Amino acid sequence: MSVRAGIIVTGTEVLTGRISDLNGPWLSDQLLKLGVDVAHITICGDRPADLTAQLRFLTEQGVDLIVTSGGLGPTADDLTVPTVAEYCDRELLLDPELEEHIAGVIRRFRPDTPDLDTGPTRIGIRKQAHVPAGATALPPTGTAPGVVIPAVAGDRPVPTIVILPGPPGELQAMWPSAVASPAVADVLARADDLQQHTVRAYGLHEAQLAETLRRAESEIAGLERLEITTCLRHGELDMVTRVASGDADIYHRLLDVLTEHHGRQIFSTDGSTIDDQLIAALDGRTIATAESCTGGLVAARLTDRPGSSAYVMGGVVSYSNDAKSDLTDVPAEMIAEHGAVSEQVAAAMAEGARRRLKVDVAVSTTGVAGPDGGTEAKPVGTVCFGVAIEGRPTYTVTRRFPGDRERVRTLTTTAALHLVVAQLGRD
Amino acid sequence: MSVRAGIIVTGTEVLTGRISDLNGPWLSDQLLKLGVDVAHITICGDRPADLTAQLRFLTEQGVDLIVTSGGLGPTADDLTVPTVAEYCDRELLLDPELEEHIAGVIRRFRPDTPDLDTGPTRIGIRKQAHVPAGATALPPTGTAPGVVIPAVAGDRPVPTIVILPGPPGELQAMWPSAVASPAVADVLARADDLQQHTVRAYGLHEAQLAETLRRAESEIAGLERLEITTCLRHGELDMVTRVASGDADIYHRLLDVLTEHHGRQIFSTDGSTIDDQLIAALDGRTIATAESCTGGLVAARLTDRPGSSAYVMGGVVSYSNDAKSDLTDVPAEMIAEHGAVSEQVAAAMAEGARRRLKVDVAVSTTGVAGPDGGTEAKPVGTVCFGVAIEGRPTYTVTRRFPGDRERVRTLTTTAALHLVVAQLGRD
Repeated sequence: MSVRAGIIVTGTEVLTGRISDLNGPWLSDQLLKLGVDVAHITICGDRPADLTAQLRFLTEQGVDLIVTSGGLGPTADDLTVPTVAEYCDRELLLDPELEEHIAGVIRRFRPDTPDLDTGPTRIGIRKQAHVPAGATALPPTGTAPGVVIPAVAGDRPVPTIVILPGPPGELQAMWPSAVASPAVADVLARADDLQQHTVRAYGLHEAQLAETLRRAESEIAGLERLEITTCLRHGELDMVTRVASGDADIYHRLLDVLTEHHGRQIFSTDGSTIDDQLIAALDGRTIATAESCTGGLVAARLTDRPGSSAYVMGGVVSYSNDAKSDLTDVPAEMIAEHGAVSEQVAAAMAEGARRRLKVDVAVSTTGVAGPDGGTEAKPVGTVCFGVAIEGRPTYTVTRRFPGDRERVRTLTTTAALHLVVAQLGRD
Repeated sequence: MSVRAGIIVTGTEVLTGRISDLNGPWLSDQLLKLGVDVAHITICGDRPADLTAQLRFLTEQGVDLIVTSGGLGPTADDLTVPTVAEYCDRELLLDPELEEHIAGVIRRFRPDTPDLDTGPTRIGIRKQAHVPAGATALPPTGTAPGVVIPAVAGDRPVPTIVILPGPPGELQAMWPSAVASPAVADVLARADDLQQHTVRAYGLHEAQLAETLRRAESEIAGLERLEITTCLRHGELDMVTRVASGDADIYHRLLDVLTEHHGRQIFSTDGSTIDDQLIAALDGRTIATAESCTGGLVAARLTDRPGSSAYVMGGVVSYSNDAKSDLTDVPAEMIAEHGAVSEQVAAAMAEGARRRLKVDVAVSTTGVAGPDGGTEAKPVGTVCFGVAIEGRPTYTVTRRFPGDRERVRTLTTTAALHLVVAQLGRD
């Protein structure tokens, strides 16, 4: 690709692993969508020498654009702007208008702030209102403004540098104005015109897809021009392809080959997730859950989405055997005879939830999440599912998932969504 | 600190933001606990030139240890070992014993694998069994072995390099053998003897803690020798302090100052989480949940822990008003009069769940997670809680949380746990 970028994430709390970074992946995805090749993401703590070393490294790597996140706060250990300014040999200048703007934001959102006009708060505001000479300030989306510093060519070249705040909400809200700034627009104008497509499969192994892609190489001329990455997540296999506008035909031929070999496993070619498809498949019907081993994760995932109260009526977490009987009318004798982890109990749970919550569709999970509770017949990872749909016999199935407790619970949650969509699709 | 390290995370799927990296933060935390200062984490895709550039960068930064994750698979695009070997000027040598070991692992776990002795699978195994000359292979914890390459001093110095697999489970399982390898043990022997302590507070602002720490600097001699980082997460404020063995007294004096100023907010000084404390506070009692806006997140968090079936009986997700009445006997008139988001309904939900699930303790949440549904009296972020404990009047409280839907749901979940612990502590 013609335009390369590097991302620098600053913050001791990220470097030391106490919070996981959301900004690097988010920025990387945004840049890729703009046709920019992200070569490196680097993370450093709040030490100017380490940040300077990373700026120098990325400059030496010949990137056209550096985006930083973090270190824009009002306190003394927030050092990104002065450190970058020094690296670029640019003086820091106070922008009085910006100072008043920041003070106004704080006045509006935290009217009880003391020392707004004098003392430590004002010193902090003034610090944040300093902008490197020749740079563009980006309006704050929290209290901290961002900065865009244009590239310098010549003996000591410096790429275009965009400085963004650390809180992900502020960073994401500021991104459009960064992209629109003249210096960044200049860089992006040289970027490739690329489209990104996602194919999602469920129940497909990475090795099987790799084998199909290998074979496709000999069948489809120019396939090597597509940039394909695959990624396994929660039991789903995503294949993301970046395609130049002239190569759309090649991608369509690839899609044909994939559909031919793995049509049963591929559930999405338009980027939609199984969560999206569940809503479409419900098509106005209501849904409820009856969970044992997932302990609420299926309901939490269904209600994750704004507006889900229109179709999610609720659910029960029947963790104990008593709860299974009390909340979903599973007969105690059935549990005694077949065990709590059985398709009979899964069916009764789903049917009970459907009746109790007066919904059209109910899905149930009951399994052995581990680490204890496994038997030879039902080892850790064994999960029974039930899908009860109004006016139909209840569907049940048993699956075995690998991994530890967390992984079994996550894989079970995803499987529950896929089962509901599959059953609703059999109309 | 005397020993510095860098971490390199490889993988296009991580660089492009399609999966978020777990290995960098985990390794960073492990190294810090061993007294090693992590200066840089760098992320690159599956391109040898970028990996080499990062190796060179970290070497130039003078780190004593580099740890890499990822790129150890059997396929051609898994390039970490050959790339690092070339960087270190070391030949790759086939280790026939290792080859048989890997083949044995695959035979045991995937007995139906074709071409185990010939063809592509065997070629992949042989690739994984190549080790740089003079390096130590670490036994596979999945199918890929790790590698430790000892440092080289002299004109072209190279730090000690540890190569680990990408899947977090495999990487974490391999870490102890990496730490025990002679070359790594040599590096760690020079590391500082540091202890790490965590103080956790709830309802404390970062700015308040910063102010207290600033004041403590003038009161406690030598405080600057402690390395303190603070981190706000899900409404809890963690303060992590790294203390050299000779400075234990200084830390204890700091702890006294913190307790004096923020004793009400500090809930843990021994590293325990609110989840740990909830179990201790239950002390054999059973618990259930009744959730509206959290939609199952509280139950999911309670059942996240192995063995939780001993005290979590279950819960209900009463998302719709009907479900609130059907599952927890909340009178429809009460909802009509006070609204679903009210302390009256929260109390009735908790009491209903306690009765229906026959437990000692029940906690309820009902609120406006947003983005829609807010009113002037009950804006987005308003959440009512109920805690019903056997033999006591039910406790209720209303809170307002900032942020978007996800943040409101997360903050509500953490708040629910804190409320239960606080109420149980009032015995």
